[in-house]
Amino acid sequence: MTITITAFESSPDGGRGLARDTRVRWALEEVGLPYAVRLVSFGAMKEPAHLALHPFGQIPTYEEDDLALFETGAIVFHIAAHHAGLLPEDGNARARAITWMFAAVNTVEPPILDLVTAKILERDKPWHAERLPLVEDRIRGRLKQLSALLGDADWLDGTFTAGDLMMVSVLLRLKLSGILNEYPNLAAYVARGESRPAYQRAFAAQLAVYTGKSTSG
Amino acid sequence: MTITITAFESSPDGGRGLARDTRVRWALEEVGLPYAVRLVSFGAMKEPAHLALHPFGQIPTYEEDDLALFETGAIVFHIAAHHAGLLPEDGNARARAITWMFAAVNTVEPPILDLVTAKILERDKPWHAERLPLVEDRIRGRLKQLSALLGDADWLDGTFTAGDLMMVSVLLRLKLSGILNEYPNLAAYVARGESRPAYQRAFAAQLAVYTGKSTSG
Repeated sequence: MTITITAFESSPDGGRGLARDTRVRWALEEVGLPYAVRLVSFGAMKEPAHLALHPFGQIPTYEEDDLALFETGAIVFHIAAHHAGLLPEDGNARARAITWMFAAVNTVEPPILDLVTAKILERDKPWHAERLPLVEDRIRGRLKQLSALLGDADWLDGTFTAGDLMMVSVLLRLKLSGILNEYPNLAAYVARGESRPAYQRAFAAQLAVYTGKSTSG
Repeated sequence: MTITITAFESSPDGGRGLARDTRVRWALEEVGLPYAVRLVSFGAMKEPAHLALHPFGQIPTYEEDDLALFETGAIVFHIAAHHAGLLPEDGNARARAITWMFAAVNTVEPPILDLVTAKILERDKPWHAERLPLVEDRIRGRLKQLSALLGDADWLDGTFTAGDLMMVSVLLRLKLSGILNEYPNLAAYVARGESRPAYQRAFAAQLAVYTGKSTSG
């Protein structure tokens, strides 16, 4: 089995690991699968060859023999479903881990994406500064609930799962904003994720692309 | 097996079926599973009893014997994974259908949610009218790509799957805005979803709650 993913040729975040290929790299590292990386320029992402793999013109994509997938959550799920290490064997625990995958991308990430969008696409608007606190407060609403649920547990539902991988990845987007630190148990949760050897390898691999080192994990 | 889901006691949309319990009802109807409904008031949704089922204080939740789930995408996936009718048997086709489930909630729904949020939470702001077209254009960006991918096909990847169920449900939120009609093949795709007998039963069941009829499907 040969796995090839795509990643940005030029890092939009200077190699801080916030591009979504890091989530896929992390999943592949957790289950111990080797993979190759094909770099795509911003221009090429909107060309027919890439759109055939990813109809929304984004990265990452995932190719494994005759299977081609896009959408980070789906790729991480596919990896987790076929290789031990990211989803519990027990059916109920497995369903709950998948629940956290969806909760990460559909409940926690949208207000965070809204903040990213506001900061990038609306920063020149006269009302930008007035609107930002509204967006941040919607994020706080979610984080408060998540923080209450996590309590002093290490992970969202017992052992580390693909649900934690997705949730930590989503929360990582907030690191620079300072909002994450308002919830010490969530900041510690994210740090716990980042300290996993598999995450460290994934982070180093994405950074190496932009510092001229190897592009394969 | 007894399945119980939760739904709003008072409809925020006047029974138009946009609350997320409709998605779960639809999935249950597609696979032919009976279910019971427990109605929850807006106040009770933030109380400990409901938060124990749904840490973000929303509906729907899903209870099946000793399993409790929240997050619509995860519930629909659980139903689809365990009952024939919503996911292909072939492994690759199944992975692609799951890809569309994630694409619906993580790529297409966020800008649509942003529009809903703007219309509800920011309508009293002086810049509301100026910002709305920006949000709508971000939605158009996604719909244009989705429309190009769908072309003149009936469904996103061959036969109807849980990916279509989720995508149609997400696009339904746009019906009143008029934006959907700018993409005739997407409007027809949504209408195709709505015309499915299972959707019709799900819609009727959610509407019956608010017109005083039965609360069980």
